[in-house]
Amino acid sequence: MSTKLTHLDDQGRAQMVDVGDKPVTRREAIAEGYITLHPATLRAIAEEKVPKGEVLNTARIAGIMAAKRCGELIPLCHPLPIESVEVHFDLPELQPHGTEPVKLYIKGIARITAKTGVEMEALTAVSVAALTVYDMCKAIDKTMVIAEVKLISKTKK
Amino acid sequence: MSTKLTHLDDQGRAQMVDVGDKPVTRREAIAEGYITLHPATLRAIAEEKVPKGEVLNTARIAGIMAAKRCGELIPLCHPLPIESVEVHFDLPELQPHGTEPVKLYIKGIARITAKTGVEMEALTAVSVAALTVYDMCKAIDKTMVIAEVKLISKTKK
Amino acid sequence: MSTKLTHLDDQGRAQMVDVGDKPVTRREAIAEGYITLHPATLRAIAEEKVPKGEVLNTARIAGIMAAKRCGELIPLCHPLPIESVEVHFDLPELQPHGTEPVKLYIKGIARITAKTGVEMEALTAVSVAALTVYDMCKAIDKTMVIAEVKLISKTKK
Amino acid sequence: MSTKLTHLDDQGRAQMVDVGDKPVTRREAIAEGYITLHPATLRAIAEEKVPKGEVLNTARIAGIMAAKRCGELIPLCHPLPIESVEVHFDLPELQPHGTEPVKLYIKGIARITAKTGVEMEALTAVSVAALTVYDMCKAIDKTMVIAEVKLISKTKK
Amino acid sequence: MSTKLTHLDDQGRAQMVDVGDKPVTRREAIAEGYITLHPATLRAIAEEKVPKGEVLNTARIAGIMAAKRCGELIPLCHPLPIESVEVHFDLPELQPHGTEPVKLYIKGIARITAKTGVEMEALTAVSVAALTVYDMCKAIDKTMVIAEVKLISKTKK
Amino acid sequence: MSTKLTHLDDQGRAQMVDVGDKPVTRREAIAEGYITLHPATLRAIAEEKVPKGEVLNTARIAGIMAAKRCGELIPLCHPLPIESVEVHFDLPELQPHGTEPVKLYIKGIARITAKTGVEMEALTAVSVAALTVYDMCKAIDKTMVIAEVKLISKTKK
Repeated sequence: MSTKLTHLDDQGRAQMVDVGDKPVTRREAIAEGYITLHPATLRAIAEEKVPKGEVLNTARIAGIMAAKRCGELIPLCHPLPIESVEVHFDLPELQPHGTEPVKLYIKGIARITAKTGVEMEALTAVSVAALTVYDMCKAIDKTMVIAEVKLISKTKK
Repeated sequence: MSTKLTHLDDQGRAQMVDVGDKPVTRREAIAEGYITLHPATLRAIAEEKVPKGEVLNTARIAGIMAAKRCGELIPLCHPLPIESVEVHFDLPELQPHGTEPVKLYIKGIARITAKTGVEMEALTAVSVAALTVYDMCKAIDKTMVIAEVKLISKTKK
Repeated sequence: MSTKLTHLDDQGRAQMVDVGDKPVTRREAIAEGYITLHPATLRAIAEEKVPKGEVLNTARIAGIMAAKRCGELIPLCHPLPIESVEVHFDLPELQPHGTEPVKLYIKGIARITAKTGVEMEALTAVSVAALTVYDMCKAIDKTMVIAEVKLISKTKK
Repeated sequence: MSTKLTHLDDQGRAQMVDVGDKPVTRREAIAEGYITLHPATLRAIAEEKVPKGEVLNTARIAGIMAAKRCGELIPLCHPLPIESVEVHFDLPELQPHGTEPVKLYIKGIARITAKTGVEMEALTAVSVAALTVYDMCKAIDKTMVIAEVKLISKTKK
Repeated sequence: MSTKLTHLDDQGRAQMVDVGDKPVTRREAIAEGYITLHPATLRAIAEEKVPKGEVLNTARIAGIMAAKRCGELIPLCHPLPIESVEVHFDLPELQPHGTEPVKLYIKGIARITAKTGVEMEALTAVSVAALTVYDMCKAIDKTMVIAEVKLISKTKK
Repeated sequence: MSTKLTHLDDQGRAQMVDVGDKPVTRREAIAEGYITLHPATLRAIAEEKVPKGEVLNTARIAGIMAAKRCGELIPLCHPLPIESVEVHFDLPELQPHGTEPVKLYIKGIARITAKTGVEMEALTAVSVAALTVYDMCKAIDKTMVIAEVKLISKTKK
């Protein structure tokens, strides 16, 4: 390389963490978030009457598929052959005449046997599942908000 | 096709909206959200001292790149040759001795001249930018939460 | 370039068709195929008892998403911002005591307003939907065969 | 999570099989299928006179590349760092004056040392190779049909 | 958004150029580059005796496919439904007893009818085709260098 | 398969090297290249005044992300869960009144613990980082050339 350099390059340089020396262990991460909906939207989801189609399974598939590609989306994430991704939904009980926004909870679980954790995979599963719910319901609900996406637990053994 | 069928297929069938007959117009969507951080994390970001590297530009790039691939991530989104994506950050002023969580705001703007809108692109830009901030800061901050991701405006002309 | 060349390059050279001068028209392609299954497998699909989950919606989503990425998979296909993809299934009526393999039909429809047709998108939707059915049922059925994947119609107006 | 939930979520929920506890073994899967062609098309392929270019190598590359991305295409497939993919073609001998459709056989072989098998990778290689043959020959042959795509063997040691 | 902000965000902020107001025109870009090889490597390529397989068609396919995905690779490139990509190779005549490195030229041509040019697509086609030649020959040639990748022309009409 | 075949298939057949029997070792590859720029362009990069935004971090991110997807771009490369990618830039010292083209060096380092090496990942990181510099500066500099992209070292232990 040229002998005289300005080391501008080293200030704040983005880099992947080198995990080469870390031990291979079984790891699990659980993330959670929710999307607020009008109760009529939640009812349409539960009754599978959303015009764009069956919302929960579609969002689950989207979340799983996005988690598998997390290493493509997040610049400094390691590409990982994850062993398991799960996306779960919890729907609140609807009140007969409620009009207050309700929360559809989304939980994402990722597991791997590797040198690094899968919290970004779990968070990505939740985020993309939520975005998919948004996409499928946006024609019938202009009030949706995705919120409280966070890591719940991270374990290794 | 076989003459006798059960029409199980048509209940809640997921489908892309056919936009073939819609007019081509210039469209813009703006989405917003924030990630809560420990103030020391925000300071590290502002001073470019996060060990994993320069956070804001990396997250901006990640958001822009994800918006371009929104049609791959969200099952029923149309793949769209978007004309512009912007990701902006707004950092709160830090108090000298604050310890309360602070909010790093993220705004995503997408624009296109097409038959369908780009709100999912704007929301995806915000979500993936937020996930990237999370990824880059997770070694120094265990308290982050991504919140209030929502559409701010959607216009066409 | 160098002045003396061997024109080895031009023999059988793979190339995309340049569609620059073709008119923009509304185009539709319909493809079809089927997967043969043990009747017990079809029953499990219809009753949503396949251990790996709900088969038809998952396969439909997979087919739609693959059609959108057809230009990535098929080397000389044009990348196209398709306007609509549909995947439909037709299930035969089951006989009470049947043991003969049965056919689950898959139809893929793609539409675009563009300079080139979308038959590969429709065929890709059918193929990947069929592969997804295969993947979801392979633990319970070792006899599956994907067959008769072909173009049914191709129209423009 | 909210304390009262409807467990709508668990009916037919799509899920990846968690392979975390499975042993790592060397695995191989072989799949096969064919595409029927007009004999003149097969002749054009064999003589490398198809206008869109050299068909077999292009289809082989497409099949190999698709197998590597199988985990992206098939929703519940594990993303796997496969160690080997092969795509082979077998062309029938042509009769001097034949006009009956002929079968171009495609075989896909995938290998890995992992916790789960690669049958979907082998099947995907065959399917996408067949689709690529279809794409390259569709301007000269409207009779093509992709058929009998199935698993031939699956071994581990 | 919060009322007080540090405008750290605007310094050097990466952004896609908004091409919304540009006219749609037919555009073409031509790029070129070469890879230096040992003459024995070039001979093996020309005689199709490289162990890893037929080099030129494989590299051509790789270049075409990468050009189609240029908008995914280059952060601020627009995703574009390109209408044509070509990759050409020019091989120098070999001297009977030459041992000096020789240059395999690669030309990439991209065309589109759009609001923005395709020079990055043409350059990406050349770069990835060159990388593919490198990959296929690296077991037999440790001296390869990719060089002089540049834009040759850019036209619109 | 059909009993009589022409073995056209085996001539120059592209194939991935089967690495199943190779030992798992820690591997590193370092590649390098440069892009020639007008000195005013280099100055604009160093002062972060390029209109399209901060060049070096954007190019670094692009190079890292492309290296992670090398197995998608290069047809016969193995998809690899790489453990580390780094992209470094070295800028020459600028002369006060220089007008001669200057070289911006790019170094790419990839590391993995696997059965096969990561030289293509390192080379891809350099190539895509260079293309990104090109893209960001092409509005202000028509003289750029990407050159001397080559492997510097490859080690395992």
